[in-house]
Amino acid sequence: MSSDLFRFIDANADAFVRDLQRLCRQPSISARGEGLEACADLLVAQMQAKGIPARLEPTAGGPPLVVAEIGDGPRSLLVYDHYDVQPTDPTDEWTSDPFAANIRGGALYARGAQDTKGNIMARVAAVEALLRVRGRVPVTVKFLIEGEEEIGSPHLAETLRRRPELASADACLWESGAKDHRDVLNIYLGVKGMLYAHLSAQGARRDLHSATAAIVPSPAWRLVWALATLKGPDERVRIPGFYDRVLAPTPAEMAQLERIAAGRDDAAIRHELGIPMFVRDLTGVALVRRLFFEPTCNICGIATGYQGPGSKTVLPRRAAAKVDFRLVPDQRPDEVLAQLREHLRAAAYGDVAVEAHGAEPYKTPYDAPIVEVVAETAEEVYDTPPLILPTMAGTGPMAVVCGPSRMPAVGTGVGHARGNAHGPDENVRLADYIQGIKHIALILERLG
Amino acid sequence: MSSDLFRFIDANADAFVRDLQRLCRQPSISARGEGLEACADLLVAQMQAKGIPARLEPTAGGPPLVVAEIGDGPRSLLVYDHYDVQPTDPTDEWTSDPFAANIRGGALYARGAQDTKGNIMARVAAVEALLRVRGRVPVTVKFLIEGEEEIGSPHLAETLRRRPELASADACLWESGAKDHRDVLNIYLGVKGMLYAHLSAQGARRDLHSATAAIVPSPAWRLVWALATLKGPDERVRIPGFYDRVLAPTPAEMAQLERIAAGRDDAAIRHELGIPMFVRDLTGVALVRRLFFEPTCNICGIATGYQGPGSKTVLPRRAAAKVDFRLVPDQRPDEVLAQLREHLRAAAYGDVAVEAHGAEPYKTPYDAPIVEVVAETAEEVYDTPPLILPTMAGTGPMAVVCGPSRMPAVGTGVGHARGNAHGPDENVRLADYIQGIKHIALILERLG
Repeated sequence: MSSDLFRFIDANADAFVRDLQRLCRQPSISARGEGLEACADLLVAQMQAKGIPARLEPTAGGPPLVVAEIGDGPRSLLVYDHYDVQPTDPTDEWTSDPFAANIRGGALYARGAQDTKGNIMARVAAVEALLRVRGRVPVTVKFLIEGEEEIGSPHLAETLRRRPELASADACLWESGAKDHRDVLNIYLGVKGMLYAHLSAQGARRDLHSATAAIVPSPAWRLVWALATLKGPDERVRIPGFYDRVLAPTPAEMAQLERIAAGRDDAAIRHELGIPMFVRDLTGVALVRRLFFEPTCNICGIATGYQGPGSKTVLPRRAAAKVDFRLVPDQRPDEVLAQLREHLRAAAYGDVAVEAHGAEPYKTPYDAPIVEVVAETAEEVYDTPPLILPTMAGTGPMAVVCGPSRMPAVGTGVGHARGNAHGPDENVRLADYIQGIKHIALILERLG
Repeated sequence: MSSDLFRFIDANADAFVRDLQRLCRQPSISARGEGLEACADLLVAQMQAKGIPARLEPTAGGPPLVVAEIGDGPRSLLVYDHYDVQPTDPTDEWTSDPFAANIRGGALYARGAQDTKGNIMARVAAVEALLRVRGRVPVTVKFLIEGEEEIGSPHLAETLRRRPELASADACLWESGAKDHRDVLNIYLGVKGMLYAHLSAQGARRDLHSATAAIVPSPAWRLVWALATLKGPDERVRIPGFYDRVLAPTPAEMAQLERIAAGRDDAAIRHELGIPMFVRDLTGVALVRRLFFEPTCNICGIATGYQGPGSKTVLPRRAAAKVDFRLVPDQRPDEVLAQLREHLRAAAYGDVAVEAHGAEPYKTPYDAPIVEVVAETAEEVYDTPPLILPTMAGTGPMAVVCGPSRMPAVGTGVGHARGNAHGPDENVRLADYIQGIKHIALILERLG
């Protein structure tokens, strides 16, 4: 019954790829405020050209949302995505320009190709296919596409408090999903939360000759010592209270973790990543439990002093670190921030300044009807049942979008295990992209 | 008797400043290998134009030395300097281009203005003054000007082993010296040694989305934890054996430390640097003892992950730190390197790689005849007796140059307390530069 839809998608595959290239060629780096309005304008134009009545929805101080509503029928589906992307650093490690959207070896290479412009255009293409083949979309689809996901969605909550109807639906299709190392589609029922903290320490008013380090305090050392109090080599976070709200997996979740572990080849993943072991030398169920049910404390970057080639002897005037904590239910970013500040104060590092923003974790129950629809249609398109993960290991504003109405959300998408989101040579395989379009089209038809 | 010399120097002050500007406008960053040969060629040409028979002396793999011998008389004086400079980072904190050599407020701003092109040209100008006013230099002056001091003089020892006559003299005038916060000239009888260590840790083969930090080891954390084992918040180095060879000050040195401390205004220095306290809240004799008689362990720079604006969520694939240890007699860099490696291995950080180079400390006794000559002439030129420091807090290849023959060495120069060597807006005050020329001319005359 969907073969005509699939035929249309296959017949128009080249055009769908060109649509994605066009969107990927527009830089939209929220961390740098680069190209966001231009990207939103482009996306609205691309959607309108396909018959989707897209428009800009202003936010109070951030780039606009791209929103659209199309279709009819008894049910409604919110489609959440974001048009912003991560910075391209280290840019010199890319094989081709991050915004060239070059195609080679059957994959499109661009910052944002997987995360998440590939998903935006797959969903737009699926709606286009229904409009062109069936003449209508049999479910009310609401697009909600923001431009600040990669910096923690600082303006989304306020906008949705003002305009709750933009996120009101029966269920939500979340932004991402990917095939794993065995090429089995993984779908996600939740997101981890986050506390993203900027730590900084100040020294003298200017960089000094390092001979003065004998007597002048060093902000680099202050920062290193402060960081070393946050987590030890045992990989356990040392901030008092940090783990208090961490929920253990339920029996049903543990059973699902067993299934997930059974399908993973830990050694192959290690080999692909080029690491001798995972943290604490974990494998199997313990490893996936840590991945999905435990919070993290990660150093995203440290900057201090001279970082060029050779030897400069300097006492830096400033040191800064970016630390992200991925949080799990029922941790709360505001509470963790308070714990972090109190910990630094108590450990005599009150001179280390902390600025932070956060996101709450969120989880959809396994038995929500949308889960079955997404999983069943995935099996039809991908020929094998998808692996249902309790949560993605990453973060997104799912609690902001879905939390107020406790809307169930499922993530599925066009990524793959070597798609390298956030890293150099991010890419999406064209075959996965086309398959993803079919999957979304089938979901929309099945909800109708 | 020297008034004719001083008149000549005053009358030609503008030309001497232009000479210095010309040398400062030629970049010569040894850490980056930038402009070294061009700077050596320029310096030879400048010296030859003044009647000094300068020439290039090749080294085995590094930039050439600039050497010259001029003058006669029973005594000989080695003049050691270096034409290379530190990198300009953070370049955006300079008020004017680091190689523009702009003059404002009576000072010349350039990378290398104080360290040490100002001293090179002051010494060249002093010889020129003697040649022009007296027709001869009454002491054999040997210039030895290298191009790799700021990266630890990797080729100097080998060259001097091959050509020991280039550094053979009765005494040595070392490269630097500066007025302190009270504008009293400080002269130095030694240098600290150094071990400059590049530490690095490796993680996965590429940067990863930070969600994977739950299970993939982080080189940034490995580096932070390893660094935190090197020195604690008590500012004491924790590498076993590190302090074993540190010599306590002699009674004569303690008496000199008392004189040094009596002349310092610790609070004023703190205020100028913008720091609330010195390390361990030290003041007075304890502070200057630490400055001159204790080794350091300083972080010159850390580079890992994302360092741009905003928030990037990444698990970096690599982390690196540059750490310099300033060493005091009788510490030896090769021994400290072995101690560092053994410490990291024993502390389970054998995965943190160390590459390093070093320099030995060196000290001249107070009663060496050259000390009296430099101090007496300084009092004549500067109107107040100079402060004699047992050592500079910084490092140089004094052991390489003076060690083999136990030649006494004294450092004096044209710097001042806010000259900001190695930092942004490095500068030399023109009045100090002219005064420094007079001081060197008087030293040369007195030795004759």
